[in-house]
Amino acid sequence: MSDIERQARDCRAAATVIAGLDGAQRTALLQAMATALETNAGTILAANARDVAAAREKGTSSALLDRLALDPARLFAMAEALREVAGLPDPVGQVTRDDVRPNGIRVQKVRVPLGVIAMIYEARPNVTAEAAALCLKAGNGVILRGGSEAIHSNTAIAAAMGSALRAHGVPEAAVTVLTDLRREAMLELLQLHELIDLAIPRGGEGLIRFVAEHARVPVIKHYKGVCHLFVDASADIDRAIGLLVDGKCSRPSACNSLETLLVHADIADAFLPRAGEALAERGVQLRADALSRPLLPGSAAATDDDYAAEFLDLLLAVKVVDGLEEAIAHIRRYTSDHTEVIATSDTANAERFVHALQSAVVMVNASSRFSDGGQLGLGSEIGISTTRLHAYGPMGLEALTVERFVVRGEGQVRT
Amino acid sequence: MSDIERQARDCRAAATVIAGLDGAQRTALLQAMATALETNAGTILAANARDVAAAREKGTSSALLDRLALDPARLFAMAEALREVAGLPDPVGQVTRDDVRPNGIRVQKVRVPLGVIAMIYEARPNVTAEAAALCLKAGNGVILRGGSEAIHSNTAIAAAMGSALRAHGVPEAAVTVLTDLRREAMLELLQLHELIDLAIPRGGEGLIRFVAEHARVPVIKHYKGVCHLFVDASADIDRAIGLLVDGKCSRPSACNSLETLLVHADIADAFLPRAGEALAERGVQLRADALSRPLLPGSAAATDDDYAAEFLDLLLAVKVVDGLEEAIAHIRRYTSDHTEVIATSDTANAERFVHALQSAVVMVNASSRFSDGGQLGLGSEIGISTTRLHAYGPMGLEALTVERFVVRGEGQVRT
Repeated sequence: MSDIERQARDCRAAATVIAGLDGAQRTALLQAMATALETNAGTILAANARDVAAAREKGTSSALLDRLALDPARLFAMAEALREVAGLPDPVGQVTRDDVRPNGIRVQKVRVPLGVIAMIYEARPNVTAEAAALCLKAGNGVILRGGSEAIHSNTAIAAAMGSALRAHGVPEAAVTVLTDLRREAMLELLQLHELIDLAIPRGGEGLIRFVAEHARVPVIKHYKGVCHLFVDASADIDRAIGLLVDGKCSRPSACNSLETLLVHADIADAFLPRAGEALAERGVQLRADALSRPLLPGSAAATDDDYAAEFLDLLLAVKVVDGLEEAIAHIRRYTSDHTEVIATSDTANAERFVHALQSAVVMVNASSRFSDGGQLGLGSEIGISTTRLHAYGPMGLEALTVERFVVRGEGQVRT
Repeated sequence: MSDIERQARDCRAAATVIAGLDGAQRTALLQAMATALETNAGTILAANARDVAAAREKGTSSALLDRLALDPARLFAMAEALREVAGLPDPVGQVTRDDVRPNGIRVQKVRVPLGVIAMIYEARPNVTAEAAALCLKAGNGVILRGGSEAIHSNTAIAAAMGSALRAHGVPEAAVTVLTDLRREAMLELLQLHELIDLAIPRGGEGLIRFVAEHARVPVIKHYKGVCHLFVDASADIDRAIGLLVDGKCSRPSACNSLETLLVHADIADAFLPRAGEALAERGVQLRADALSRPLLPGSAAATDDDYAAEFLDLLLAVKVVDGLEEAIAHIRRYTSDHTEVIATSDTANAERFVHALQSAVVMVNASSRFSDGGQLGLGSEIGISTTRLHAYGPMGLEALTVERFVVRGEGQVRT
């Protein structure tokens, strides 16, 4: 048996122990893990300093260095995030249906853990702690395969959490941080369909496509967020500009930021010059179609590729459409199934937009930036799915469980 | 573009039309499809007669011939089944969560169709009609890849349903019956992850494993049902014998039939002789362990393989265990994650059994044969899942949808 398979088997055995704990025990475990991060702060920060120094030596960009680096404040925030997860409602055992059949059997649907989750992600050490906490809270074991840049940080974080697991009688393998980061090891992991119930890749599109292409275990993923805002003829212009600026500028690198603005022709003259000004003030460059360019000084001509792009930057594609149906057709063509927004005062148009589009999140008069587990009330978020199966959109604790049947009778038989 | 890809693209385009219908329109469509089966009865029965003649010529077993053959009564039952599906509650648009966040945005989770479902199954023409109906009712397109034995029947059924689709303004491709039944064509179909949202294989374990091993589209499946009955020391003996006889004998070829009987040592002397008699009367052969054999005249010695086997026949593996925990350990080792039953009068033991086992269906004092969509109140059943993702256990209409987010605000922004 290879090391990877042995680790997966150990995690699976430990997952049965986690699933056997009750909710209060899992809460106490997560609180102890938070405390362990704090009491091991020195070791974790020293390990992180090694990662940061190595990354700096390799000439890593300052943006990536910033994502990698921990300091006491960030570490305590990490511990605090674990306490928040600990305090979330327990999804395990939730009864989602309860029904007595005509023959008297009582049929319930009850949430149970998935089993073992494999998280595959890039260099953000806080993901290690938070993903582990979410998986454990939902009764699962977790295998964490982070980036090589964060290997010392991730190992130190896992060791701290492991001490809390041990103290609660749970095998440390319930949270398994892989240290063999070769691509072949990841490929092997992704074949273990009898040991791993779900893989969640998080990171760049290349990593996610690699996982999706090679996995024999189920994968829930999102490749990118090409989020659209359609400003309808009836939109309140001030509100629409608020949605546009928040959606594009509040965090351009987030997948729930806007990438394309569609504007109804009837409101283009009134809306676009003001919108262009608000965006220019914030340094946003525009790629516009022939109808909108005259209204947007300084804009460049949009290509077809611009409408398909996830810029993740202060760039926005703009297009004037002749009505709601053209907006819907455009979105259907370019959608990444992530998040679409309509700004409108017309209820019928809002409903048509909601029903015509099958994206994971569709919003009426609300910022695309709310397409986030925390903002939508899920508590913390383990990822976002644009896979139309199991979970669709931001994934919270419930997405780490599945509903099964519990039937209680008094000896009923079928024949 | 290959024929298979073109057919999948056409089905995907048609699925958008289906998803755009409202519930009443989908109900009317299914009713029209039922009528079309009846008005085309002559053509369908003639096509079926060709399939049956060809199968008979190939020396097909009488059991398989019986599954393949249609007659007027079976055809009208098929039409009636479509009307039943038509009358089921509409899953599309169901609101499963409705919550106003502190900032005033209203967050709903709403069921939407999955998109395109590929059904891969063997020679039962009634699956063609019923699976198509369930997929359409839930707003999906469907690609049906049946067995070559039923090709004329399936094509004729699809043609009849296609006439109803056309009459309702839906492209016939919404229900696509593949006629290229080469294995390479199936392999190609299973790679089309941008066109197909879910594959559901139904049939023998070999077919299902082939699909699971080669698919790049998500697959929900169950390989087999090794269902257990544990008779606890406190069980009511008459009831337990009722559960045993119903579970083993009412339809041995069904996946929800019992394959293994576990008996608490304290009740073995009282229970097993009576159980053995009841089973012997019905022609059941027993494979028993050393402790139970003396109590079961005529039984053979059980091997390890017997406890892993899905007999699908009048055969039962038997084992005496020294208590609930040994029963749980045995089931955990041999489970197919399908259905497990406890017969007990002890509430604490019942709860321990339910919580210790993570199978898709766990029953207390009820027959394993209720592990079926219709019996559990799901209406009709598209399949059974032992995949712990999306759906777990019998799958009804809801399993052909996914919950997405709809957010309504009044211009709220995040920053």
